[in-house]
Amino acid sequence: MKGSYELVIIGGGPAGLTAGLYAARARIRTLLIERAVVGGQIANAELLENYPGFPDGISGFELGLAMQKQAKKYGLEIMAAEVTGLEVIGGEKVVRSSEGDFGARAVIIAGGSEHSRLGVPGEEELVGRGVSYCATCDGALFRDQVVAVVGGGNAAVVEALFLTRFAEKVVVIHRRDQLRATRILQERALASPKIEFRWDSVVERVEGEGRLKELVLRNVKSGEISRLEVSGTFVAIGLRPNTSYLDSVVDLDSGGFVVVNERMETSVPGVFAAGDIRANSARQAVSAAGDGATAALAAERFLGEAT
Amino acid sequence: MKGSYELVIIGGGPAGLTAGLYAARARIRTLLIERAVVGGQIANAELLENYPGFPDGISGFELGLAMQKQAKKYGLEIMAAEVTGLEVIGGEKVVRSSEGDFGARAVIIAGGSEHSRLGVPGEEELVGRGVSYCATCDGALFRDQVVAVVGGGNAAVVEALFLTRFAEKVVVIHRRDQLRATRILQERALASPKIEFRWDSVVERVEGEGRLKELVLRNVKSGEISRLEVSGTFVAIGLRPNTSYLDSVVDLDSGGFVVVNERMETSVPGVFAAGDIRANSARQAVSAAGDGATAALAAERFLGEAT
Repeated sequence: MKGSYELVIIGGGPAGLTAGLYAARARIRTLLIERAVVGGQIANAELLENYPGFPDGISGFELGLAMQKQAKKYGLEIMAAEVTGLEVIGGEKVVRSSEGDFGARAVIIAGGSEHSRLGVPGEEELVGRGVSYCATCDGALFRDQVVAVVGGGNAAVVEALFLTRFAEKVVVIHRRDQLRATRILQERALASPKIEFRWDSVVERVEGEGRLKELVLRNVKSGEISRLEVSGTFVAIGLRPNTSYLDSVVDLDSGGFVVVNERMETSVPGVFAAGDIRANSARQAVSAAGDGATAALAAERFLGEAT
Repeated sequence: MKGSYELVIIGGGPAGLTAGLYAARARIRTLLIERAVVGGQIANAELLENYPGFPDGISGFELGLAMQKQAKKYGLEIMAAEVTGLEVIGGEKVVRSSEGDFGARAVIIAGGSEHSRLGVPGEEELVGRGVSYCATCDGALFRDQVVAVVGGGNAAVVEALFLTRFAEKVVVIHRRDQLRATRILQERALASPKIEFRWDSVVERVEGEGRLKELVLRNVKSGEISRLEVSGTFVAIGLRPNTSYLDSVVDLDSGGFVVVNERMETSVPGVFAAGDIRANSARQAVSAAGDGATAALAAERFLGEAT
């Protein structure tokens, strides 16, 4: 065992950082483990317009840093490592990570979720060579070029709208004949002179020699195959939770998200979940942060009662 | 009917304002009804240190104003009125208020909760004449005087610590022999040279002619009666939800809080609850705001499906 804590928080996005802030302020000996960039998914968001308290918006990166600073001010310990397992042995929990094992009396799972991949030939080879999952990160690379966005939900439409700032043309490829995105986003997208739609279509193959050149599309109604020349393709077809290591530990729903109640309690006493990783999350920075506070207070109560 | 909306939000605290921000951004025709000050309970908080994103803290008043400004920017309509009833007639809802009735297809209940009263002789007569429920509001009136705080939870200890800035002495009266507050708060309170404790004690009577003069205390173990001369008394024994008009409309728990699931759905389709008014709320500004976002997205989905 590399160390032992009262509480280990897995993940350093809004949910984990807020849980860490609350736990640290409550003087609970807490370790937060984050494998990549503190801030989680929002670290890539150029401007959050709907995190309450910032009427002019705030960049995700800035918000993540502010949350980190605030939590550290009260003594939160943050470590860079990849969590690989969680074991519950009676009342004790062991969090296994790339930096060793950590004992804990309570655990908050706040590891977020990741973008789903298309799973078609050519995709993996061309990631970072034209295939991207983050317009905010890579959009500016495609100035005055033709790009595609795959998907029809909020994320896809937000990506498409963002890309119109750079690209000459944005082609949205969606498997249905209408968008799933909210009305305001739909209206904006349908009104944009730079956005075109390929309805009822799926990507069959991603092609290019060392660099993306073409998408092979199939119309799901007619079966017709067509080709689309693009410089970039942004895949926005959903998120999958980072719960592969939790399969037989806590109850997961059919999508792999952690099942919780309104106190963020999982099926295992002393194990809580917060943010995008939990079932039926609103997947918003503020709801993730709210979950983090809720989970931390539940963990605090659990630790108090267990003493 | 004074008007008809897609969504009516009852309450203008962090939960209601965040729900309003999300609904307005989603172009849902929304009315927010607030009877008093926008910001709700936080409007009285001098400094919120645990609203994530503000490492140096922010006053509750400022945060409330910022949330209001942000929601109005996207077109949220806010009205001052007291809500007196909610009726569900088939799929339609009617919100009754001091300014008339408003039709709605969906409703978010975010009316918060209020401080519980002691319910002892003399209390009502001396409210605002020495008896208070808000140290942040009234604490400065008792400079260099002796004040009491009734209660032993977080709220009571926070009030007591705050009052040490002004008062000569703060006497905490608690019915048990130990505090229920979190460790950090307990440690701080027990270490404060200005704070004294009256354990196992309850207030029997509040006395004074036109102005608070004495508390009559009873020791719950020995039955002994004692008197305590104080200039001010701050009652911090809990909150009760503003749900009197909801009794037979949606399911409430034994404390009168609205029962919701993790999507903030109540027992009635199209009626949601968020923030301090819902059962098992963490009662924090950020968790209330998170609830608001969750409820608004659930309402948006409900309205979309109902179209």
